[in-house]
Amino acid sequence: MKEIVLAADLGGTNLRMAVIDPSGAVLFRTRRETPRGECPDEIVRAIVECAIECQKNCSDFQVRAICAAVPATVSVERGLILKAPNLPALDDFQMAAALENELGIKSILENDANAAVGENWLGASKGFANSIFVTLGTGVGGGIIINNKILRGMEGTAGEIGHICVEPFGVPCGCGSRGCVEQYSSATAIVRLAKDLESQYPKSGLKQYMYLTAYDIYQAGTQGDELALEIFRQMGFYLGLALAGLINVPNPEAIIIGGGASAGWNLFLPHMQKTICQRAYHIPAKRAQVSIASLGEDAGIIGAARLAFDSLI
Amino acid sequence: MKEIVLAADLGGTNLRMAVIDPSGAVLFRTRRETPRGECPDEIVRAIVECAIECQKNCSDFQVRAICAAVPATVSVERGLILKAPNLPALDDFQMAAALENELGIKSILENDANAAVGENWLGASKGFANSIFVTLGTGVGGGIIINNKILRGMEGTAGEIGHICVEPFGVPCGCGSRGCVEQYSSATAIVRLAKDLESQYPKSGLKQYMYLTAYDIYQAGTQGDELALEIFRQMGFYLGLALAGLINVPNPEAIIIGGGASAGWNLFLPHMQKTICQRAYHIPAKRAQVSIASLGEDAGIIGAARLAFDSLI
Repeated sequence: MKEIVLAADLGGTNLRMAVIDPSGAVLFRTRRETPRGECPDEIVRAIVECAIECQKNCSDFQVRAICAAVPATVSVERGLILKAPNLPALDDFQMAAALENELGIKSILENDANAAVGENWLGASKGFANSIFVTLGTGVGGGIIINNKILRGMEGTAGEIGHICVEPFGVPCGCGSRGCVEQYSSATAIVRLAKDLESQYPKSGLKQYMYLTAYDIYQAGTQGDELALEIFRQMGFYLGLALAGLINVPNPEAIIIGGGASAGWNLFLPHMQKTICQRAYHIPAKRAQVSIASLGEDAGIIGAARLAFDSLI
Repeated sequence: MKEIVLAADLGGTNLRMAVIDPSGAVLFRTRRETPRGECPDEIVRAIVECAIECQKNCSDFQVRAICAAVPATVSVERGLILKAPNLPALDDFQMAAALENELGIKSILENDANAAVGENWLGASKGFANSIFVTLGTGVGGGIIINNKILRGMEGTAGEIGHICVEPFGVPCGCGSRGCVEQYSSATAIVRLAKDLESQYPKSGLKQYMYLTAYDIYQAGTQGDELALEIFRQMGFYLGLALAGLINVPNPEAIIIGGGASAGWNLFLPHMQKTICQRAYHIPAKRAQVSIASLGEDAGIIGAARLAFDSLI
């Protein structure tokens, strides 16, 4: 009987789950909106319902484990969510134990670093021993791979790329700090920048939108809207600043950019690269290959699956 | 015949060398000013002269290797200095080969990370698998140890702690960027801050100095000079900001502060710790033990010696 795993990728906005085999093939997938309640039960229930749906649709296979990747600092060893700035209901929640109770299969917890593992297994950073994956979504997350291993730090709390400070007296962040790159380069930040800057661009077409999304801003930018272009200039500058620091410190061979806001790639790339060139050490900056993620939204589930399989060894 | 190594610690201001045995005992030591010429020959000659002096004074022992630690990005594998912002004569210089030619012993090159190894071998971070050493001297250097190994990155160019950006539009830095923590928290920066801020503190006693040093400013601070206290507040704030980023990303158990300007510890510590508490994730920030280096100026040579012994295995 073929062995499979369940891979759950919990974002601030969407929950994705898939059934994945040892080659990385996705056999079945489902998704729903991430519940935004005040206690973790609703989120657990959503994950369990997805898992049951997956199992029903793949009943010929043996489900060996589930890996749930969450947008939070986590203690991987203890299966514990420490702090989830964008899903505060999950703070201090024993997620792995809850899933193991409900599903009766081995359950492991990971943070955003899972997508780095996905891109490293089957995507844009395949073959690189040292890489960084940055995901630009509701927040800015990601993972750092050094010598083919996730940089976990003491308890799995390392790699919080989104909370690198790029403006010491900047915008307050959900993590308690200010000026984190998440406040300048996430999809959420792109929309906020539009509001912050719109008074300086009276001719911008973006003012006509009632509910503006990062994608609307991108579309306007491709049509030459100057407010949109300035937003992506700032977004790329600050992202470049954070990446320059990562080039100077953990020093990756490859930097992979994913997540929803990476759709704005052609608008922010020149500003991001210019900043990297100006701000990072020249030699490692030249060496670091910056590219867009190749697995798209699947990076998270593919990486979670890889981690689930690894946990069985 | 007892085996020994030579350990050279080249700073922007001083060159220190010592003869060290496998237990870490310093059998002989010497020092001189770092030559500031425009080509590397003078620096090589200074190192060679120190080495000859060391060998003469320890002729009963067999010198097995020399490790030269330099304030630069280096390719450890190739023994090559890539970029030395505070000693530009050494840019692109094959230091290990030059020393091997002159001295006829195995020669290895390392960067500031050597001091991290010293503190980890016999000093304040002994016993910690994940630690960061920050040295506050002419520049800000240091090293990151993850799972008991130096974080080297691709070619030995990782760990450039001094060039973490803490002010995106701040003071230009020798590395080509702006607002690096080196420009706010090094001994050099302390003196520059005095000049930048003195017009705001007309009563400060620091104005009477013709040549002000970081130590003069520290002394004035201990006597309540308000300009001096403000300098150490800013210096501690920016250092805390860089360390908060390191707590969020590589996530050390211990942070050790050394170098000449660490003498100002009691003046900058409260500001540094407050910033770490406010800016880093709470749990890893609480866990990270911040302490002053215990080997003093010897951290560099002790670490270089450890690396020289390791190179013989």
